Amino acid sequence: MYGERMLKLAKAADLASSKYDVRIILTPQPSDIYMLARETSHVHIFAQHMDPIPVGRGNGAVLPEALKSSGAVGVILNHAEKPMTLADLSQAIKRADEVGLVTMVCADSIREAEAIAQLLPNIIVPEPTELIGTGITSDKDYVIATTTAIRKINSDIQVLQAAGIKNGQDVYNMIKAGADATGTTSGIMKAENPEAMLDEMIHAIRTAWDEMHDK
Amino acid sequence: MYGERMLKLAKAADLASSKYDVRIILTPQPSDIYMLARETSHVHIFAQHMDPIPVGRGNGAVLPEALKSSGAVGVILNHAEKPMTLADLSQAIKRADEVGLVTMVCADSIREAEAIAQLLPNIIVPEPTELIGTGITSDKDYVIATTTAIRKINSDIQVLQAAGIKNGQDVYNMIKAGADATGTTSGIMKAENPEAMLDEMIHAIRTAWDEMHDK
Amino acid sequence: MYGERMLKLAKAADLASSKYDVRIILTPQPSDIYMLARETSHVHIFAQHMDPIPVGRGNGAVLPEALKSSGAVGVILNHAEKPMTLADLSQAIKRADEVGLVTMVCADSIREAEAIAQLLPNIIVPEPTELIGTGITSDKDYVIATTTAIRKINSDIQVLQAAGIKNGQDVYNMIKAGADATGTTSGIMKAENPEAMLDEMIHAIRTAWDEMHDK
Amino acid sequence: MYGERMLKLAKAADLASSKYDVRIILTPQPSDIYMLARETSHVHIFAQHMDPIPVGRGNGAVLPEALKSSGAVGVILNHAEKPMTLADLSQAIKRADEVGLVTMVCADSIREAEAIAQLLPNIIVPEPTELIGTGITSDKDYVIATTTAIRKINSDIQVLQAAGIKNGQDVYNMIKAGADATGTTSGIMKAENPEAMLDEMIHAIRTAWDEMHDK
Repeated sequence: MYGERMLKLAKAADLASSKYDVRIILTPQPSDIYMLARETSHVHIFAQHMDPIPVGRGNGAVLPEALKSSGAVGVILNHAEKPMTLADLSQAIKRADEVGLVTMVCADSIREAEAIAQLLPNIIVPEPTELIGTGITSDKDYVIATTTAIRKINSDIQVLQAAGIKNGQDVYNMIKAGADATGTTSGIMKAENPEAMLDEMIHAIRTAWDEMHDK
Repeated sequence: MYGERMLKLAKAADLASSKYDVRIILTPQPSDIYMLARETSHVHIFAQHMDPIPVGRGNGAVLPEALKSSGAVGVILNHAEKPMTLADLSQAIKRADEVGLVTMVCADSIREAEAIAQLLPNIIVPEPTELIGTGITSDKDYVIATTTAIRKINSDIQVLQAAGIKNGQDVYNMIKAGADATGTTSGIMKAENPEAMLDEMIHAIRTAWDEMHDK
Repeated sequence: MYGERMLKLAKAADLASSKYDVRIILTPQPSDIYMLARETSHVHIFAQHMDPIPVGRGNGAVLPEALKSSGAVGVILNHAEKPMTLADLSQAIKRADEVGLVTMVCADSIREAEAIAQLLPNIIVPEPTELIGTGITSDKDYVIATTTAIRKINSDIQVLQAAGIKNGQDVYNMIKAGADATGTTSGIMKAENPEAMLDEMIHAIRTAWDEMHDK
Repeated sequence: MYGERMLKLAKAADLASSKYDVRIILTPQPSDIYMLARETSHVHIFAQHMDPIPVGRGNGAVLPEALKSSGAVGVILNHAEKPMTLADLSQAIKRADEVGLVTMVCADSIREAEAIAQLLPNIIVPEPTELIGTGITSDKDYVIATTTAIRKINSDIQVLQAAGIKNGQDVYNMIKAGADATGTTSGIMKAENPEAMLDEMIHAIRTAWDEMHDK
């Protein structure tokens, strides 16, 4: 999603964030950040990628300071579709800290998540493909295994679990299983009515959270 | 340059473009495209890079359709700081044609410029480092050698010459030597007053052009 | 294939090359080049990749001079599984010319093949995926289209056609359609008896060639 | 170094390894591994790089099984001149374990070394450029800082310190400072007589080691 279609979803997310008092992260194309940041007031805009370059170099690279000034508050790093070298990832986390961008780093195995935890990001998104077919199928086991491994190294890191979320029930189960947060791209994109699906999911987070905290 | 500082330069460029009736291309960070496109009316906003991905895939990649919808009218490809594989470059030119973005492709040798000419971009920027120290030092020889090589393959391609432009006199000489266009990053960035330098350069283009066409 | 298994195939290729008087190119892992070059006397050993680095730099890169000294006589560049930037490809062809290695460059579209032809390699391997479903399905049309496009730019470049070769009949048809050469990896690897299949294919080349030249 | 020149050095290393009873790792071009493994009997041949591919795919990639079969006993990963994505590095360490190759992984900061330690390599080579200018200038402080950080995570990992080794005295100091091992490329390459310098360095290791263990 991009442009006007993305703006419509962002406005629905803004509304849902306010209505349910739940924090929502959106991760648009870099060229949509400025527009979305101006047109919303509750959602958090994260860039999809950032390069660890200094100001004044790197035509074609995504500059940390430029993201910040356009309204982004955080950045995804090392997504499976944009893998980073270890040196760049380490440096990008430092640059994000310098300019004040929250870092959300993707891992594709538990061992990789443990390595990333040493680099002190704010959020880790573990998507351990290795678990597929191992018998660790329940949401609960999966969430506990990855969360425990990361927390053992650094308990300040938040863990966002994003495997196969398709609807409100999946979201509810994930939060009840102990995830700090959850996320989806295809679950929203493939929904017949993305805005309605977003409302359903955010509502599910609120419900799960309230039940866990006796509200 | 990015954010507010870039916006100030863009407004000066917008003014100079109108004042001297000269076409100006700006190449900002992707996150500044939307803002600059809204706040200017004469300059042409080109993205610094684009990936040849289809809609719906490629987190962290720069989507052609998203650039277009944010206000970009063109894109730089294969910049020396963002070299592309031949397969990606070929595909990116096709994708740009599809969505209606002008392609400006960089080459770092005459032979590379000839290869790029076969891919049918709109503009080629030859920066033949190989010429350094070969005796072909005058602007005129340099411009003629590269322009001739490209035109021989496809005479529709425009050639933008961008080697070592520091001031209005350099710009004047380059246009008089036969370049379709010229450009600079450091010449503007390092100037004490970038807006004044920009005005000087655009004025020089106008003068050179008028002298060449007897106006 | 690698190690002892590759050596067995190389010896069969060596025998077939001599028996049918047909030139055969083998493209082993870099660590097998030295062994194969010593143990064969007719086949031509090409490396699978090479980096355009100078002597004395580039840990982890494949050095042209080292390939040459180990017994390689040529190198594949820009294979679809190892795409190169245009700048590296252009430079690698120059480095190969310097040290005396034959260059065989892969292209994945006709337009890409035309761009590569400008870089003056010795051999181009066009595998135009774009032709799929276009109606240009016969071997003959396919071979003529790509060969003509390349020859128009530089008639010294040899064209090796390698699409979907499974057996001796495919090889025969390809040569009769006008290809300078043909090749296969999976056709040999997936054969029940790779050495027998290799003999069948080389025999087919000989037969096709002799028929075309009235012997 | 490559080819015959490398073979001469390898033979001198083989002799020094035997003479001083010190383990020596050589890291040649992939195309020299087979020759060096056959012509030496004491030195350990490590490849300069390896890709985490399975057998049967990846033209142009370096296959773990092929390295092993050619005589390599280990592999360097993530060298500063061949940086790997975190996902590839993690996978390459697993593949090396599978085929029985020792892993030696480079890090360019202490934080990066800590991340790598989570991936369970056999050896880490920390070259913390960040320490430059921090006052931690003595070999001893430098070695202790990096070794401590790595050991805290996994005490089985050996630490090879390789910063600025130019002669036998540097080697002696490094081992006395607590390094498990040390290494150099330029110290040997730039020596007037590389074989003599190699003997001097290996002798220095023996001396330092014996002094530390009261022999």
